[in-house]
Amino acid sequence: MNYILGIDGGGSKTVCVLMDDARQVLGRGEAGASNYQSIGIEATLKSIESAIYAAVNEAINITNAVRIEAICLGLAGVGRAADIELVKSLIKELQNSKLLPLTWDLQPANIVICNDALIALVGGIGHPVGIVVAAGTGSIVFGRNHQGETKRVGGWGYILGDEGSAYKIAVAGMQAALKAYDGRDMSTSLADAFTQHLALASIEDLIEVIYRRGWRVKEIAALAPIVDLAAAEGDEVANKIIDDAVQELVKATSTAVDAIFGPSEFLEVVTTGSVWQARCKIHERFTASIIKKFPHIKVIFPKYEPAYGASLLALQRLAGEWGI
Amino acid sequence: MNYILGIDGGGSKTVCVLMDDARQVLGRGEAGASNYQSIGIEATLKSIESAIYAAVNEAINITNAVRIEAICLGLAGVGRAADIELVKSLIKELQNSKLLPLTWDLQPANIVICNDALIALVGGIGHPVGIVVAAGTGSIVFGRNHQGETKRVGGWGYILGDEGSAYKIAVAGMQAALKAYDGRDMSTSLADAFTQHLALASIEDLIEVIYRRGWRVKEIAALAPIVDLAAAEGDEVANKIIDDAVQELVKATSTAVDAIFGPSEFLEVVTTGSVWQARCKIHERFTASIIKKFPHIKVIFPKYEPAYGASLLALQRLAGEWGI
Repeated sequence: MNYILGIDGGGSKTVCVLMDDARQVLGRGEAGASNYQSIGIEATLKSIESAIYAAVNEAINITNAVRIEAICLGLAGVGRAADIELVKSLIKELQNSKLLPLTWDLQPANIVICNDALIALVGGIGHPVGIVVAAGTGSIVFGRNHQGETKRVGGWGYILGDEGSAYKIAVAGMQAALKAYDGRDMSTSLADAFTQHLALASIEDLIEVIYRRGWRVKEIAALAPIVDLAAAEGDEVANKIIDDAVQELVKATSTAVDAIFGPSEFLEVVTTGSVWQARCKIHERFTASIIKKFPHIKVIFPKYEPAYGASLLALQRLAGEWGI
Repeated sequence: MNYILGIDGGGSKTVCVLMDDARQVLGRGEAGASNYQSIGIEATLKSIESAIYAAVNEAINITNAVRIEAICLGLAGVGRAADIELVKSLIKELQNSKLLPLTWDLQPANIVICNDALIALVGGIGHPVGIVVAAGTGSIVFGRNHQGETKRVGGWGYILGDEGSAYKIAVAGMQAALKAYDGRDMSTSLADAFTQHLALASIEDLIEVIYRRGWRVKEIAALAPIVDLAAAEGDEVANKIIDDAVQELVKATSTAVDAIFGPSEFLEVVTTGSVWQARCKIHERFTASIIKKFPHIKVIFPKYEPAYGASLLALQRLAGEWGI
């Protein structure tokens, strides 16, 4: 029996899926973050090792001889040749691990290293053709066509881009609340909403929270639901912010469609990330705009998680399919 | 002879002016930063002491008995009661300094502690009535009327506000360059301009520069001249960014005017900060918009520096004028 590992390494957690060649998931494990650019290579190795250990441990009940013939690692920010070399050396270290209750039979050709957008696409759609619109803390649009051509739009991070992300929605909400407070723009329930949620004496104390408590992108992005709720309750300013976010995501998606798909080619667009869980019908707004522009496109929620997508990629590499 | 000290304490330097009661400047000194929220109270005390030392040292040629009867300290971010208490204790420490070649005769009433916007207003206009539109690394609009009422608009920092600032112009420029690169928006000379200026292999490497080199607000804001130059050379996208910045500053100024001045009351609006030095006629664009809305307003460049404004405030406190 051939086994493969699919790994999704992200900024908050690492997920590993152990799959057989009949696409059966035999085990699944989670561990801490594995974005090596932030946390370093040692901590990343540990997270990946722990996630694999947890996945294999689950499978031990089914089989007691786990031999890995292919592996796919999808990691945020991996693109340049130097990154790929680094991740390869990381996989070598895994192969020497004394902790993992498995054996390896990895041909170099059966090691797949790619960015997190591709595994989200493959997991979300179930095969590697279509577009993924990821909108969580950050945002990125990534597409791949039948010929294997890819197109990335966005993904430039919280300062340079991330349009339509939870971070950008949260920041726009706070800016609107402060502009209303200044008397520069129309009033909005957002000022009260932030004040209450953060237990501030006044909306002016946002300065204290944002700059002096050392809040980072993730903490700020976690305030996006405040804007979502205000929009769902009919606040005009909040709805404008959500509409702007939707239009940014529609524009990025359209750019990817136009770049690599034919004018009336059928394709699926999968939406991933926390932004799509909003109560203010952000998914419906996005879908309506996309369908109006591209009636032949189907907007879907993910069929499977990214780690499952990574498993499929490893499996197809083993079978010599897909050419990825 | 009565002497007073006017001090401008900022994030990059501290300036001290020693003035007599005939508004004659007898000495001027500079030292390092004095934003105690970032650099701590010890370093702030040292900067202020050094700036005073330098100013008094210059005056020693004119007089060898310097006795200080009033002091005004204008510091960024000072507003809350706790801040003011802290700065008062700092002034007490200065009075005990063994380093300073001067004596003190400070009544508590002759100590003025205020934010940096007020001293910029008083220095810029020469008296404490009007509006200051500060647009440097950050941005803030601050006004004061004949009745002593004040109005602040903006000044919420680089995440929550700072519309029209060098930071926001630079970020908008990089975002536009990347959107053009993605194919999302119209092409612009900004992509080449950033690539050349930062010696990048590709505009994609902006990610490397902005996130991995640990660049902070000041370093990013220092890229605003790239956008300025592109706008001056006729780039449409860059000009749109500059126009947006101008409109944000006009809106903030209008809000302050409407809040504390009568509909056709004469007043001066003074512009301070690096943004106004741009080659792309940003000052002219701003002035044209303001005059169109408020024909009775005069837009001026600063008459004096903020430290001079602080001196005037100290002097007027001594004279019992102005009520500040």
